[in-house]
Amino acid sequence: MQHLIDIASLNSASVLQLFSRTDSLRRQMPPQPLAGTAMVNLFYEASTRTRVALELAGRRLGMDVINVQSQSSSATKGESLIDTFHNLCAMGIRLFCLRHPQVGAPHQLAEVAPDGVHIINAGDGVHAHPTQALLDAYTLREALGEVSGKTIVIAGDLRHSRVARSNIALLNMLGAAEIRLASPEAMKIRPLPPGNLVEFDDLDSAMPGADAVMMLRIQKERISELEIPHGDAYYRQWGLNEKRLALAGADCKVLHPGPVNRGVEIASSVLDGPQSLVLQQVRFGVYVRMAVMLEMLSAQSPSNQEC
Amino acid sequence: MQHLIDIASLNSASVLQLFSRTDSLRRQMPPQPLAGTAMVNLFYEASTRTRVALELAGRRLGMDVINVQSQSSSATKGESLIDTFHNLCAMGIRLFCLRHPQVGAPHQLAEVAPDGVHIINAGDGVHAHPTQALLDAYTLREALGEVSGKTIVIAGDLRHSRVARSNIALLNMLGAAEIRLASPEAMKIRPLPPGNLVEFDDLDSAMPGADAVMMLRIQKERISELEIPHGDAYYRQWGLNEKRLALAGADCKVLHPGPVNRGVEIASSVLDGPQSLVLQQVRFGVYVRMAVMLEMLSAQSPSNQEC
Amino acid sequence: MQHLIDIASLNSASVLQLFSRTDSLRRQMPPQPLAGTAMVNLFYEASTRTRVALELAGRRLGMDVINVQSQSSSATKGESLIDTFHNLCAMGIRLFCLRHPQVGAPHQLAEVAPDGVHIINAGDGVHAHPTQALLDAYTLREALGEVSGKTIVIAGDLRHSRVARSNIALLNMLGAAEIRLASPEAMKIRPLPPGNLVEFDDLDSAMPGADAVMMLRIQKERISELEIPHGDAYYRQWGLNEKRLALAGADCKVLHPGPVNRGVEIASSVLDGPQSLVLQQVRFGVYVRMAVMLEMLSAQSPSNQEC
Repeated sequence: MQHLIDIASLNSASVLQLFSRTDSLRRQMPPQPLAGTAMVNLFYEASTRTRVALELAGRRLGMDVINVQSQSSSATKGESLIDTFHNLCAMGIRLFCLRHPQVGAPHQLAEVAPDGVHIINAGDGVHAHPTQALLDAYTLREALGEVSGKTIVIAGDLRHSRVARSNIALLNMLGAAEIRLASPEAMKIRPLPPGNLVEFDDLDSAMPGADAVMMLRIQKERISELEIPHGDAYYRQWGLNEKRLALAGADCKVLHPGPVNRGVEIASSVLDGPQSLVLQQVRFGVYVRMAVMLEMLSAQSPSNQEC
Repeated sequence: MQHLIDIASLNSASVLQLFSRTDSLRRQMPPQPLAGTAMVNLFYEASTRTRVALELAGRRLGMDVINVQSQSSSATKGESLIDTFHNLCAMGIRLFCLRHPQVGAPHQLAEVAPDGVHIINAGDGVHAHPTQALLDAYTLREALGEVSGKTIVIAGDLRHSRVARSNIALLNMLGAAEIRLASPEAMKIRPLPPGNLVEFDDLDSAMPGADAVMMLRIQKERISELEIPHGDAYYRQWGLNEKRLALAGADCKVLHPGPVNRGVEIASSVLDGPQSLVLQQVRFGVYVRMAVMLEMLSAQSPSNQEC
Repeated sequence: MQHLIDIASLNSASVLQLFSRTDSLRRQMPPQPLAGTAMVNLFYEASTRTRVALELAGRRLGMDVINVQSQSSSATKGESLIDTFHNLCAMGIRLFCLRHPQVGAPHQLAEVAPDGVHIINAGDGVHAHPTQALLDAYTLREALGEVSGKTIVIAGDLRHSRVARSNIALLNMLGAAEIRLASPEAMKIRPLPPGNLVEFDDLDSAMPGADAVMMLRIQKERISELEIPHGDAYYRQWGLNEKRLALAGADCKVLHPGPVNRGVEIASSVLDGPQSLVLQQVRFGVYVRMAVMLEMLSAQSPSNQEC
């Protein structure tokens, strides 16, 4: 695996190999296998959880992790992303974790990346966030035994969610029986991606028989004019509360990629309740990203040799 | 010591133990005793000195130190502090150094912290800044032999100063004979905390017999409407100049938690003069924080094992 | 070498020694020779390339590198640069890489720096950027065999360029035959520094016989009222395109300190073409800075001992 741009970078065998590596990392941490390798977190959007998880994953593997955030970067002097990338490559950086508001930005970098330089897409516009989908699927597998044959609801602001798109692709690849997409009209994904997808116009109807439900945050920063019910009205119609969750039963698991808006898309009692896997997702997210990094980089010589 | 939220987290025996550990660290640095442990500097207010001192302390002990600052964090997406904290805990972070504008924020985290996760309050509103008080007391002990029985003046903007509140509590715990509080009416602490406190309406009267004087910065960012003398007038009445310092004598030590506004609360000649311990405070501050971190974390297994 | 403030901190022997050290570092990286030493990147201006290159150089040598950027620093509380510096020194920081908008800021720090504390000027206003000049000269030496006897064109916004000033001084020190300065009237350097300088009012006339040409970015952030041709007009008159480069011949090398504005001061085809050394500059920049750091710090005891 040279890059991880979207789920199309993977196949089911490579995903299972990543999950197996993740299992090993949880059992025993290797002593700094990537020491001497340099990684950059190149973030053009605000982030805490993803940036910290990637930084921590990189450091635990022994890498030198350098943060570059757009606010204080040469982007303000007019340099293009590609030129910034080439410059950082020239310095010997071997791994780039890129978050960017533009769809396709990590793909652009991958196209011009030299041998031995790797890109992890940490979220590009509404397109993809593949490490989030990997950690979600890993979490589901831990909780449900396997993803294959399961029925998963994804609900809320699907249209503006790169997480939803990556999850649909990955759950499909792993053999989910049915992926149910529940959202208001203004938040439906268009065009609809391929897969065993069923759309729902309300959340209640989507719940019965679900093995897990993934709730999504309203991406306020991506919606200019809101054509959706506001505040309490949204929560009444689309929020996952205990009563709604009960429609799926006590074994149905609850996921959320975070950050969570309590009382908007999900009730606190559900988020903090026994069916929630939300903190498991975060916990496994560090290990899954370490597995991806090792997969990409462990066969290589360290970057502190001249290239 | 699981957390250090305010001076009430300590007693005089635990303080002396910390000071003894600080002494040892100054004599000999152990080789990375906390390697494999991850710490976050979670700062919701601007800071250089405290943030860098904590980062340096953590790194010298071998920790992976990750900075999270509010400007570029998920706080901008509406996530609560508690949820951010739970997420970072789930990633395996073992130590949180929190600076927050709201009184009680670190206490909130401590209430929900899992076993093995520690909080250091790096300043919460006007409430407390306990590591600053510890380094101040350590510096006084180095200079004066002991704190017990000494007379200490704290002068300036007491009302808005978390440093003042933590110092009053700690100096009292360590047996200071008298703590003199000198400030304009609008800057007096209300309600007055317990202790051997004597209030003064001018600085000149507070100086005779003082073993040390701690000057405080006017917390301009916390004062909306200034009911105090402005600029030169403040300096004339409340600034520590050489003449005023002479009222206490040549053995009286001068402290300031920084950042300093020269010519406002203190004369440059005093700040840079032979009685000033200001840079000693900063120097000892790194060691004192290392001692706190070791006290909290050294008995634990490293965080790169799954929790 | 205690500090590197501008080219006057060096002589030709010390430059050749740095270059020889750079050669060694490229051949073989020593295992963390500066472990236990702490360095601060103290940046009061936006930067990606220089900040990352310095951070990477420091980390590869094993240092603890701490970033301090003005936006979130105590500068906003009114502390002076000198006081910030003294505080960081007191914490045991041994190396400061300072970028500051004011000419002379690093010199101010050097004047008050304690023994064993070192300053690298990472750019001060329009004055100097000596590590950039060193990496430029190293790159030229790699490409041309030596700098001595060569003819170098420096073109574009000379007036606002600290890079130009440092390059003029260093190329002159290393025995360049002729340094040609080509720029519009409003961008000429005044007063003209000493050296074998020849000024040109157009770029075409400066090209014939040149061994290398260094293009400069228009420092928009330093020009309030632009007395220069705008946009396309600037590019037509002053942009380095293939036709212009051909006036110097196929052996003429092209340099640019970055960030580059493609289609303003340089054509993409030239920047990405076979005569361009721009990414070589960036690549060598990490090694040159490591050489400077080793030169300054390798004879010292590590900073995690009390000073």
